[in-house]
Amino acid sequence: MSEKIAITPVTHTQPPARFSHGVKKGNILQVAGQVGFLPAEPGQPPTVAGPTLGEQTLRTLANVQAVLEEGGATWEDVVMVRVYLTDTAHFAEFNGIYDEYFADLKGAPAARTTVYVGLPQGLLVEIDALAVLG
Amino acid sequence: MSEKIAITPVTHTQPPARFSHGVKKGNILQVAGQVGFLPAEPGQPPTVAGPTLGEQTLRTLANVQAVLEEGGATWEDVVMVRVYLTDTAHFAEFNGIYDEYFADLKGAPAARTTVYVGLPQGLLVEIDALAVLG
Amino acid sequence: MSEKIAITPVTHTQPPARFSHGVKKGNILQVAGQVGFLPAEPGQPPTVAGPTLGEQTLRTLANVQAVLEEGGATWEDVVMVRVYLTDTAHFAEFNGIYDEYFADLKGAPAARTTVYVGLPQGLLVEIDALAVLG
Repeated sequence: MSEKIAITPVTHTQPPARFSHGVKKGNILQVAGQVGFLPAEPGQPPTVAGPTLGEQTLRTLANVQAVLEEGGATWEDVVMVRVYLTDTAHFAEFNGIYDEYFADLKGAPAARTTVYVGLPQGLLVEIDALAVLG
Repeated sequence: MSEKIAITPVTHTQPPARFSHGVKKGNILQVAGQVGFLPAEPGQPPTVAGPTLGEQTLRTLANVQAVLEEGGATWEDVVMVRVYLTDTAHFAEFNGIYDEYFADLKGAPAARTTVYVGLPQGLLVEIDALAVLG
Repeated sequence: MSEKIAITPVTHTQPPARFSHGVKKGNILQVAGQVGFLPAEPGQPPTVAGPTLGEQTLRTLANVQAVLEEGGATWEDVVMVRVYLTDTAHFAEFNGIYDEYFADLKGAPAARTTVYVGLPQGLLVEIDALAVLG
């Protein structure tokens, strides 16, 4: 019986409901949907890194990475990245930021699906990730 | 070679296409997107539990749970819950219902991603889930 | 330590960013979001199979299948299909095409989630898939 472990980076805000920022069970590590929130300040509500796609994307990727690292994984273990944008006009700029972020990746890049959805006011991007460990 | 097994709770309506309400293969159990349909009545089209977010969310979670249980799993095995809402204004109410539903969860809550999409007329919420068994 | 392997069918266009059309790690094969692009022509930008849902759906499913096959898998190994449509009015027609495509499936059909999102101009459908091998 493999235990299910919650992954909660110290930098992360409290989830707004009964879910975990990340979960590990068996050889699977699932990162919950991350957005561009800055590191949590005790007693303060979450603050978005900034209004631009660039600021939010970099912070969102950093937040996914924080969950991976807290769970003992790296981007090299990630098999799938799900990207939720709010505007098809952001695709090219997003890809530029994404490629630069992953410039030093050694192994195969993860698969990815990008779709365009609604997000809460002010958020331009949400990202989750699935990693296979070991 | 691990066999792939379809999971079909007796309470569930016939899927509208060639897919399974749930599938188990190896240590992975995947629950298909569930909505707020009431238990199937033979010969009748599916009926939504009600027009409100509360009615539909509780029924949708019950439908996910029925697939998990039919597959020999529980919410404790679930690593990821994907929530599709249709209106960002529903987020707070949805979280309240979600938290109450999972009040008795013993282990780590699953990770979760919530995005806002279009759904067929009258549906306010759709949920799927990924569980890791054993 | 299981190696992560990129899956790149020769028929596929170069991904527009640093991601793989498919990835295999351990017993997991993840197919990235596929759309209705025709087989790649060297030096040419991607071309959509046609403007209709039928043309795009058949081509998208063929593109998913190409990744599965390049990774040593088949639809029989797939546990989850994620379908992104752009218009709820397409659901019935999509299901008809889907059912015909999978008419010869021997085992349990995969689970499926269908939601309605925005996609880049001209695209009506995007599909990704998760397979469990062995």
